[in-house]
Order: sequence, then structure tokens, then C-alpha cells
Amino acid sequence: MLQDVVGMAAVSVLAVLEQAYFSFQVIYARRKYSVSPPSTAGPPEFQRIYRAQANCSEYFPIFITVLWTSGLFFSQGLSSLCGLLYLYGRFLYFRGYSQSAQGRLTPLYFSARVLWVLLGFSSLGVLSSLCRFYLDLDLVQHLLSVLSLEV
Amino acid sequence: MLQDVVGMAAVSVLAVLEQAYFSFQVIYARRKYSVSPPSTAGPPEFQRIYRAQANCSEYFPIFITVLWTSGLFFSQGLSSLCGLLYLYGRFLYFRGYSQSAQGRLTPLYFSARVLWVLLGFSSLGVLSSLCRFYLDLDLVQHLLSVLSLEV
Amino acid sequence: MLQDVVGMAAVSVLAVLEQAYFSFQVIYARRKYSVSPPSTAGPPEFQRIYRAQANCSEYFPIFITVLWTSGLFFSQGLSSLCGLLYLYGRFLYFRGYSQSAQGRLTPLYFSARVLWVLLGFSSLGVLSSLCRFYLDLDLVQHLLSVLSLEV
Repeated sequence: MLQDVVGMAAVSVLAVLEQAYFSFQVIYARRKYSVSPPSTAGPPEFQRIYRAQANCSEYFPIFITVLWTSGLFFSQGLSSLCGLLYLYGRFLYFRGYSQSAQGRLTPLYFSARVLWVLLGFSSLGVLSSLCRFYLDLDLVQHLLSVLSLEV
Repeated sequence: MLQDVVGMAAVSVLAVLEQAYFSFQVIYARRKYSVSPPSTAGPPEFQRIYRAQANCSEYFPIFITVLWTSGLFFSQGLSSLCGLLYLYGRFLYFRGYSQSAQGRLTPLYFSARVLWVLLGFSSLGVLSSLCRFYLDLDLVQHLLSVLSLEV
Repeated sequence: MLQDVVGMAAVSVLAVLEQAYFSFQVIYARRKYSVSPPSTAGPPEFQRIYRAQANCSEYFPIFITVLWTSGLFFSQGLSSLCGLLYLYGRFLYFRGYSQSAQGRLTPLYFSARVLWVLLGFSSLGVLSSLCRFYLDLDLVQHLLSVLSLEV
């Protein structure tokens, strides 16, 4: 059973490591720009790093949720691959946002697109499982047979 | 095994879709009220939408956690149903908060109550499993026999 | 199968209860210092309580992720124990931060260290599973045999 989820677990561990890296960047930025907790107000340079980390944190649970549902109900391999792409996109986003507000856009759109793919996989997988379990209907088989009848 | 969790997976996918919808509302509000990232300061109309989304994001992982523990250890059907109610409550909360700070209260209390129900289910389910696994005690059976002795 | 995860489920339920407690503290602080939503600006006393809760919320999904991956792939008992220590550390952190910005530091470092331990367990467990499943290599056995050859 663990064999079916080890890919998602590995990506989850990497995702936590990435979040730890972002957190350290905020700590360094707090020191550099002399912004002491609990304040989160500071120069735009600090604000951008702070917001970049906050945005990644906000999306972390959403990412973990779609990664695992997609991996469980659709495909472990594809989901883990998308997971790695998402983490890479988030790294570029963080670096881009640290430099300028404009610099965050391209990697943000990329990460968002990967998240939509994972959400699509999850939806397809869950829907097809619901059909199989509760309607006794094999969705993929059904679509294929409909298509072949039309040919 | 997937059959035991497909209900929670379906609700989780819907929850992610709802969060995506809230995020889009913040993006529209940023444009409408000309609040460019990284700033989050703006007129009260923007502040309310921004805070509504932030609050829903904050509760998202808590919701997912109780949804799944409750579904695994108590009842998949009841947990999924509560999950749908919670998501509906959150939708009303977001719409209410967008209109006025007062408008968020009724659906907020409703969502909170559903969350408490899921937390209650989780606690009961986990406690009864702990008793069964480690004390070799069937909590439900035990309570029933105590009650029947008292009758 | 539920027997393999009941420890993590119990800690997760406690973690949600703790978050509920922190949320109530913010609600009381909002009343005490007259900070009405959607505003989050207020006196330093309010700011500290607000930031303490926000910080705990931010780490909640990360904690849940490493708790479960560590429990699934390394050891349920050790992970649940670390989970309890983390929750205790977070409680001390919240109380310390409520009193002074300085007071948050010792328990914050403690919680962070427990989180690193859980992350270490997760990494080891997942890595060893990856080796076993995909390289047909028992990492622990392999290390032991290398060590015994060197002796």
C-alpha cells in the first residue's frame, strides 16, 4: 500500500523543505531590513519577500491536497512529476518576486497552470471512481465504446 | 481501499475549486480597487474581500484534516455531507463578507458549527479506535451494555 | 490499516483543537483591544496575539504533512510522540508571544527543532522506501553490512 503513495510522500517532503527555505529567506530579510516581529510592515524589498513566502504558504495545503488526490485516484507517476514541476515553478516565483513585483508573474502563471493540471487529474480520477463504485459504470470504457460506435 | 475515501476526495476537490474561485475574486478586487501586489492595504471593500479569502485559506487545512479523520474513523457518508455543508457555508460567508463586515457573521457561525461537528466525529471515531486497538475495548458496545445494565 | 494511522489521527485532532483555542484567543483580543474585522492593525499586544495565531496556522499544514509522512514511512509511535511535543511547544510559543516578542523565541526554536526531527524521519523513511521499491535495495540492511565489513 505504501508503494502506491511513496511518490507523493517524496514530493511532499521536498515541498516542506522548500517552505523551510522560504521561511529562512524571510528571517534573513527581517534582519537585513530591520523589521522586527510582530511587525510585517517594511520597505518594498522586504514586503515582496514576505508576500512571496505568504503566498507559497497559502497554496501549500491546496497543492498537497491535489497532489495526493490526483496520485491516489489518477496516476502516481504523473502526479509526482507535476508536483516536481510545481515546486520548481514556486522556486522561480520566489526568486522572481524577491527581485521585482513584475518578476513574479511568469513563474506564477506556470505554477498556477500545473496546479490546474493536478486539479484536472484529481477531478477525472475521483469522478471515474465515483462512477465505478456507485453507478457500476466504467467511465473510460464507456467513453471509448461511445466513440467506437460513432466511428 | 479507495472506495473508503472517495467521498472525502470528492469533497476535497470541490474545496480546492472553491478556493480557486475565492482567489479569482481577490484578483478582480485588486484590479477594481487598484491595489497592486505586494500591497494588501486598500479601501474597506477590498479589505473585506481580501480578509474573507485569507480566512477561508487559513481554515482550509483544518477543514481537510477533520474531514479525512472523521471520514476514516467515523463515517464516510456523514463526513462528506458535513463537508458539503461547510463548503456551502463558506460560499455564503465569502459573499456576505464582500458586502459588509456584518454580513459575514451568520454564515461564519454556521461554518464553525459544521467544523465542530466534524471535529466531534473525528474525536469520537479516533477515541473509539484507540480503545479498540490498544485496550481491546469496544467503546460503543461497552456504553450500550452499561446503559442496558442501568435500565 | 486504520491501526497504522490512529496515532497520527489522534495527534491531528489535538492539533485542530489547539488551533481552535488560538482562534478563540484572537477573538477575545479583538474584543479587548477593540479591533474590528477586517482590520488587523492594533496595539502591539493585539498584534502579537494575532501574529502568534497566524504563525501557528501557517505551520499547521506543514506539521500535518510531516507528521503523516513520518508516521507512515518511519514510525507511528515516534512520530506521534514528536507530534505531541510539537503541540506542547506551540502552546508555550503562543503564551510566550502573547506576553512579549522576546518570549516567543525559546519555544519557537523548540517547535522548529521538533519539526526538523519529523522532517528527518520523513526523509529517511521515504528514501528507504524508494530504495526498497525501485532499487530493490534494503537501505538499513545495506548500511549495516557496509559497517560490519569495515569492522
